[in-house]
Amino acid sequence: MSWEEIELLYWLDLFGVVVFAVSGALAAGRKSLDLLGVVVIAVVTAVGGGTTRDLLLNRHPVFWIADPTYLTAIIIGTLLTIWYTRHKEPPQKALLLADALGLAVFTITGAQITQEVVSNEVIIVIMAAITGTVGGLIRDVLTNKIPMILQRDIYATAALAGATVYLLLQLTALPSSVNIMTAMIVVIGLRLAAIQWGLHLPRFKLEEE
Amino acid sequence: MSWEEIELLYWLDLFGVVVFAVSGALAAGRKSLDLLGVVVIAVVTAVGGGTTRDLLLNRHPVFWIADPTYLTAIIIGTLLTIWYTRHKEPPQKALLLADALGLAVFTITGAQITQEVVSNEVIIVIMAAITGTVGGLIRDVLTNKIPMILQRDIYATAALAGATVYLLLQLTALPSSVNIMTAMIVVIGLRLAAIQWGLHLPRFKLEEE
Amino acid sequence: MSWEEIELLYWLDLFGVVVFAVSGALAAGRKSLDLLGVVVIAVVTAVGGGTTRDLLLNRHPVFWIADPTYLTAIIIGTLLTIWYTRHKEPPQKALLLADALGLAVFTITGAQITQEVVSNEVIIVIMAAITGTVGGLIRDVLTNKIPMILQRDIYATAALAGATVYLLLQLTALPSSVNIMTAMIVVIGLRLAAIQWGLHLPRFKLEEE
Repeated sequence: MSWEEIELLYWLDLFGVVVFAVSGALAAGRKSLDLLGVVVIAVVTAVGGGTTRDLLLNRHPVFWIADPTYLTAIIIGTLLTIWYTRHKEPPQKALLLADALGLAVFTITGAQITQEVVSNEVIIVIMAAITGTVGGLIRDVLTNKIPMILQRDIYATAALAGATVYLLLQLTALPSSVNIMTAMIVVIGLRLAAIQWGLHLPRFKLEEE
Repeated sequence: MSWEEIELLYWLDLFGVVVFAVSGALAAGRKSLDLLGVVVIAVVTAVGGGTTRDLLLNRHPVFWIADPTYLTAIIIGTLLTIWYTRHKEPPQKALLLADALGLAVFTITGAQITQEVVSNEVIIVIMAAITGTVGGLIRDVLTNKIPMILQRDIYATAALAGATVYLLLQLTALPSSVNIMTAMIVVIGLRLAAIQWGLHLPRFKLEEE
Repeated sequence: MSWEEIELLYWLDLFGVVVFAVSGALAAGRKSLDLLGVVVIAVVTAVGGGTTRDLLLNRHPVFWIADPTYLTAIIIGTLLTIWYTRHKEPPQKALLLADALGLAVFTITGAQITQEVVSNEVIIVIMAAITGTVGGLIRDVLTNKIPMILQRDIYATAALAGATVYLLLQLTALPSSVNIMTAMIVVIGLRLAAIQWGLHLPRFKLEEE
């Protein structure tokens, strides 16, 4: 990758972290936590996936300890969210789009970071999905819900598909920027298509014992 | 240990992982998650204990990153479970037996792995129990239940007893294969006796404030 | 720090661990877990914060693996709690005071340990709060409640304030013992004031979708 691409991905990653923090803050607001509780949920939603990835890969210092800009961005994003929603409705459609972009970014950066340490493709795809989804999963556990990604529409699936496309395109002669863009479009496209047309994976339902 | 024993334990460990994946898939089915949610719960149930052990012991790469055979086995086991239960009732008794065997295997491999790094016996016994029980605990948290191992019958207790027996027998001149078999029989026996006769530890009950 | 101070902090840390174990055991008692479940919750409440800190900072062996005295103290404390509450009401006021002292100790030791590895002040303050609060958070998740620290009064806030005071006082010429005492008094004072007068942070409440 060129320096410009690394730079671009860093800014996108920071953007993804802030978007996930906003989604965490909104989820916390629906449970009427106190201000610090909201910040905690926002932080955990934003950094939970990348932190889990870094711990599993033994990658230290963990990304937000290595670069505290992430925490600053999360806290500012959370405070702006609290301030904004005192006066206006959260812009649901813009947030869904931003969330899809955040998922796409985390998927790609998760895959890239894992590739520096591991060569097995299954592990890389799983770590990419972990980076994209574990923050939201912890958010749901802390607010006492069955995690959304386990039950609703195409979410982790979009991350798995995007990471798979990203690895497959590396086998071609395409420049890495085209590869990254394509994989991100796969994630965003799947995610938005799922929302638009209510797509979801089949459910697996057993009778209660 | 001889090479044959190491080989045998590896296959038993793989068997334990698959059994725990099946139990996770069935628990997920009772919550009507989507297909990917079922796979996620199955994976977490199967690898959660060993992963926690490896992170706490700073043992990298984590076992399923070092050997992706585990993930492949889990995914195949989960898909077979979904396919099987579409037509037939899950064989409850066989599953309880398989689960007891899985717990026994994880207890022994957990104790062995910990012994490579730590000499304190209390830590070894606890890590053995963590290896055997944390996967099921995370499964219960993700499906929004109070973890079964905290409230019902003899489960973690069987792991603690088996690991203790395993350490005690190391003080004798018994060959390691006899030691391993005996400790596994303790775990399985306690577990099956608890199921058969409804044994459980006394409860500790305080009034709600 | 002098050897006397290090010694004092070690004993205080051990005291904090036992206090948190007692609070975990009492919480478990309200959910009528079995005896081992109570011990598990007590252990997790007592060591959860420090373990999370050590994993995030890549500090191995984790504190309770390095020094099993902690586990012994926790188990004795838990058994005494179970025995005591069979006959008498738990002494609520003494426990709240002890819990405030435990929070204060964990905040300071968390800040000190983090400072050995990291220089960024925001990270140090956050790790101090993690050390003081994550154990209780996991306790609440395992007993299937929305974590108390996310919703009720001044708790994590007291840890954040105490750690901030601790860092600010390091810029002065005060001896470290005065610094430590002052920061602990800030935590305890805020905590007790919050209980006494029902202080809490403002809530952030959104309409349910």
